Amino acid sequence: MANLRSVTLNCTLKPSPATSSTDLLAGLVNDELEKLGVATEVIRVVDHDVKPGVTSDEGDGDAWPGIRQKILDSQILLLATPIWLGNPSSVSRRVLERLDAFLGEEDDQGRVISYDRVAIAATVGNEDGAHMVAGQFFQGLADVGFTIPPNAQAYWVGEAMGSTDLNDLDEVPEKVRSTAADVAKNAVHLATLLQQSPYPA
Amino acid sequence: MANLRSVTLNCTLKPSPATSSTDLLAGLVNDELEKLGVATEVIRVVDHDVKPGVTSDEGDGDAWPGIRQKILDSQILLLATPIWLGNPSSVSRRVLERLDAFLGEEDDQGRVISYDRVAIAATVGNEDGAHMVAGQFFQGLADVGFTIPPNAQAYWVGEAMGSTDLNDLDEVPEKVRSTAADVAKNAVHLATLLQQSPYPA
Amino acid sequence: MANLRSVTLNCTLKPSPATSSTDLLAGLVNDELEKLGVATEVIRVVDHDVKPGVTSDEGDGDAWPGIRQKILDSQILLLATPIWLGNPSSVSRRVLERLDAFLGEEDDQGRVISYDRVAIAATVGNEDGAHMVAGQFFQGLADVGFTIPPNAQAYWVGEAMGSTDLNDLDEVPEKVRSTAADVAKNAVHLATLLQQSPYPA
Amino acid sequence: MANLRSVTLNCTLKPSPATSSTDLLAGLVNDELEKLGVATEVIRVVDHDVKPGVTSDEGDGDAWPGIRQKILDSQILLLATPIWLGNPSSVSRRVLERLDAFLGEEDDQGRVISYDRVAIAATVGNEDGAHMVAGQFFQGLADVGFTIPPNAQAYWVGEAMGSTDLNDLDEVPEKVRSTAADVAKNAVHLATLLQQSPYPA
Repeated sequence: MANLRSVTLNCTLKPSPATSSTDLLAGLVNDELEKLGVATEVIRVVDHDVKPGVTSDEGDGDAWPGIRQKILDSQILLLATPIWLGNPSSVSRRVLERLDAFLGEEDDQGRVISYDRVAIAATVGNEDGAHMVAGQFFQGLADVGFTIPPNAQAYWVGEAMGSTDLNDLDEVPEKVRSTAADVAKNAVHLATLLQQSPYPA
Repeated sequence: MANLRSVTLNCTLKPSPATSSTDLLAGLVNDELEKLGVATEVIRVVDHDVKPGVTSDEGDGDAWPGIRQKILDSQILLLATPIWLGNPSSVSRRVLERLDAFLGEEDDQGRVISYDRVAIAATVGNEDGAHMVAGQFFQGLADVGFTIPPNAQAYWVGEAMGSTDLNDLDEVPEKVRSTAADVAKNAVHLATLLQQSPYPA
Repeated sequence: MANLRSVTLNCTLKPSPATSSTDLLAGLVNDELEKLGVATEVIRVVDHDVKPGVTSDEGDGDAWPGIRQKILDSQILLLATPIWLGNPSSVSRRVLERLDAFLGEEDDQGRVISYDRVAIAATVGNEDGAHMVAGQFFQGLADVGFTIPPNAQAYWVGEAMGSTDLNDLDEVPEKVRSTAADVAKNAVHLATLLQQSPYPA
Repeated sequence: MANLRSVTLNCTLKPSPATSSTDLLAGLVNDELEKLGVATEVIRVVDHDVKPGVTSDEGDGDAWPGIRQKILDSQILLLATPIWLGNPSSVSRRVLERLDAFLGEEDDQGRVISYDRVAIAATVGNEDGAHMVAGQFFQGLADVGFTIPPNAQAYWVGEAMGSTDLNDLDEVPEKVRSTAADVAKNAVHLATLLQQSPYPA
């Protein structure tokens, strides 16, 4: 197996040290990635001054260049978000806007700079919206060069119009745990293949 | 209050006489509409031969012209759908495709033929997707000439990755009932206003 | 006609004084609103420190309370956004997250605080995404209490995979101008009705 | 390179022999797949009686079992659709509903039956909606077991509110041709890898 690294972008709206259900779910995926030998790292994006824009460096204190470098140093990107009004967080949309710059950047083989990397998702909400998140994430991430494995999203939401957080549950449902394990397993398999056999130029 | 009529298009995939959770939820909204004096009618679309296409009459046994007339004879359209893979049913998308023809049709004042009508939604699923449905429905229905009231969707979905139907519950949750009542109340108020004061040509 | 006010939230990613195609298109709608007697105001959201969160006041320098008050002082909200990766801007998603707080706030009649207000959209991009924006906006805005008129979005995007901005065109296409006029006309009619006849408590 | 097969599901609303812009664009992708040694086949879904439902065989003349077998006999699925009201066609949503059954079906290793297959998209419209299609397709197809390569959608749409078809153009834009080639190249690379190294059970 290749020597893989993953980076998680936790796109919660709540700065540290507030507890985050998104963090809890991303952690389950990361536990599974680590069992498979992946070195993991988590960045809570809202703690950093990621400027609005669609370039790789918006200058003047922009925290994105450092985060961008960690994405390029990893083979797996875990985009983790809460759901608000049925959609991924504004913080995650800002991440996607910044990733848009990849489309104009080439690696030394003339390929989109992000190629050979795998993207997965972890999504939590009180209620409803995880499939909408998956749609936006998989489209945006595939468009900017990532490969999406099957069953690429770990998620939890409660019953319609509920207000329970994943953090509030006595126990994470077994189905959520097993999905997290599947997401990790598929991502590692795919990232390993793409490290060994990169997309052609 | 104006003398209002509503038509419900139940977009379940299951032909009659199969029971339908979509029917159950639409029925709750219709009960509330009737309490407010609205004459209601329900059409299970899959029981009729609605042809693929984007005109108002695709000829040759097409059941759409009859359904279309009922929509035009009503002041409230209730579009009701189950969720599959996080999205509204193919049957509901076919309805929207057929409604697309309204964009090329004018009433005797030169307005889009559907103007002054209100559209609302009733959405059910085992899990997740109701906000995605609302997004597709409100965009599509506003684009073809309907007005959308606030809190225009009654919905129920269970916890993530669940397999329970609304029909399986011992009792419809109170929150679902009260939302159905709100949806009906706002729709009737808005439809009444628009009957009294149509959009200008 | 009622004495109406509108507020435009321009959700471009570019701080003032950069030119903004979103501003151009919103301006066309606002010109039409003014012809109909509406007092208009434009806020470029990214110029203000709108904090991440889902309450009406996130404290500590948060610029949202002032913007929120302008929304409540208006009868028409024009949400204007550029398209990035086929979606509305992160700034517009932040606005929606902050509007989410309306769901827990009542007016003096016990109704959702935003009721009787109309929401419309102005959307621009190099290419593709306006219908996705309309879906997200109409769902989110209806969910937090706004009413959506028919044909509620003015928009322009170029041909697939293009890079032309609306600002780059020699002339705004006539179809865009006439749509802007229709959006304004319907919004004013609907907002006037709702001022005269508010939703029942 | 593995001995690959692809199947295209053309989800136009128009039965044969009507010309189809969707067919034209799918053909460009298929030409590229063939140059790379893939055996291709195109099915116009609307010509067949695919029943509504979410099982693999809805009985009674259902044409899905035959189409389903061709999907399983292929390593690449090209889902091709026109855009209506900013969304993929009802025919394509029906295909996704039928694919939903894969989630309950295992191969002889206990994996989701569709694993190791790659899905790509070809999308055409008069105007706007391709990113929405990509979102729905990539989410749905990943959820039912397919892997999504980077830049997985070939698409063309005209300027906002236009009515030109891809078929109407004197020439297919070069950018569309080069995207079709990229889509094919990435799909073949990925499908080859997954044939050689299947996902673990």
